[in-house]
Amino acid sequence: MLALLVNGVECPPERAVSAQDRGLSYGDGLFETMLLRDGRVRYLAHHLARLAFGCERLGIRYPGDECLKTEIERVRRTHTNGVVKVIVTRGTGSRGYRPLRDAEPTRIVSLHASPQVPSAGIRVRWCSTPLSRNTLLAGIKHLNRLEQVLAQAEWDDPDVAEGLMCDSEGELISATAANVFIVRGRELWTPDLRYCGIRGIMRARIIEHAHGLGFDVQEAPLRPDDLESATEVFVTNAVRGVRAVIALGDREWPVGPVTQALTKAVETDA
Amino acid sequence: MLALLVNGVECPPERAVSAQDRGLSYGDGLFETMLLRDGRVRYLAHHLARLAFGCERLGIRYPGDECLKTEIERVRRTHTNGVVKVIVTRGTGSRGYRPLRDAEPTRIVSLHASPQVPSAGIRVRWCSTPLSRNTLLAGIKHLNRLEQVLAQAEWDDPDVAEGLMCDSEGELISATAANVFIVRGRELWTPDLRYCGIRGIMRARIIEHAHGLGFDVQEAPLRPDDLESATEVFVTNAVRGVRAVIALGDREWPVGPVTQALTKAVETDA
Repeated sequence: MLALLVNGVECPPERAVSAQDRGLSYGDGLFETMLLRDGRVRYLAHHLARLAFGCERLGIRYPGDECLKTEIERVRRTHTNGVVKVIVTRGTGSRGYRPLRDAEPTRIVSLHASPQVPSAGIRVRWCSTPLSRNTLLAGIKHLNRLEQVLAQAEWDDPDVAEGLMCDSEGELISATAANVFIVRGRELWTPDLRYCGIRGIMRARIIEHAHGLGFDVQEAPLRPDDLESATEVFVTNAVRGVRAVIALGDREWPVGPVTQALTKAVETDA
Repeated sequence: MLALLVNGVECPPERAVSAQDRGLSYGDGLFETMLLRDGRVRYLAHHLARLAFGCERLGIRYPGDECLKTEIERVRRTHTNGVVKVIVTRGTGSRGYRPLRDAEPTRIVSLHASPQVPSAGIRVRWCSTPLSRNTLLAGIKHLNRLEQVLAQAEWDDPDVAEGLMCDSEGELISATAANVFIVRGRELWTPDLRYCGIRGIMRARIIEHAHGLGFDVQEAPLRPDDLESATEVFVTNAVRGVRAVIALGDREWPVGPVTQALTKAVETDA
């Protein structure tokens, strides 16, 4: 961690948050991780919009764009590259699940080192940890992430960069920390996330650019065996961008033309 | 909060926990809430056993009975009644879901005021927030509790003490912060919790005492309409004990003989 503000106050990371914060007690909050590149936070407005939407869904008071932008600017000031993480929780509370109506949300804004992103494609594997279905929690980036933690604990081979996850009914949903796209010729398919998964910022950008490039895009329920007929596969997230999937077990794919065209297209985003 | 130890160190609650604690980042941990009564922590061994089991399930290093008992004794020392809460998280970590193999767990041990428990029965309602199914997370008392938070946010009538929750497939699972039992004559029924829900300490005590009293106990999938034929209904948790349900909407029940017998039986526990 390179910099940290908790409710706008600089503090040592190791003694930063209340023992009664509901983010800690119940995962009662949301987060965003954003790419700082060349002095700019990419897709800042999109991230804040998703965070505001998540707050509304959970009934947490959104701290406001201006407040968060100011604090993001303060943590990134002396850096030009890195990852900005924002956590907003429902704030501190007494024991018990019931949320206080007038709770003051907690803001935790931090800057972290940039991740290493491979220039070529990545190898992925299947995870056996299922994602559970709950339409109330689907789409938003809340703090209840034990399923992703358990999924990433399933392997430690550094040559495998991501794991694909299905939900409890066997539908393909996402990678552990990325959305997934399947390409068949000029058609793109991605899970519709109606029951679980996170609606990624890069996922939305890819869908928009794909339309612009004349590809057909379907958000639909997918199954693991839909990968069999794929001509290309890639995963996306806001920090690591588009990553071509070149292998899943014995199955291999090229870094194909559609993946390349979309990678190039999102580079034109501000 | 009456007393607090974080990793064995007294500290002010408002600056207690690392901004990088995985309990906060992902709900990557477990908790227990125990009743301190007349200077004794009730069912301490049962609580610690469940916590150890949960740690094993999540791959978190269990701090050990002796360590936790010592810290519980330190926070409760000057009090004879209250609620002891223990949180164990996977510890601090860098950004990213992947758990570190050698992470040092975080222990947060605190003492809180006793809750008010009604002497008569309670009114309950239905919650519309569903519980999601995941066999890996079922039974244990982990920190991913957004579903319970959203369920308790559904009502604010102080005359309604609890809400009943179903899972995403419509099975009756539990109350928001208690297990549920249905009585029909001398038969007891309680949800089997194979997909979700928490295996309560008091639930297990009730099942054992019910056997001892010659009642027939079934752990089985239940549906909301199973309540229709119930002659008694009650909910249980370790802090509030056994509470008879006397009303659910227009449906009313007496505080019946089975509920009374079991309430009396668990009072004989050490």
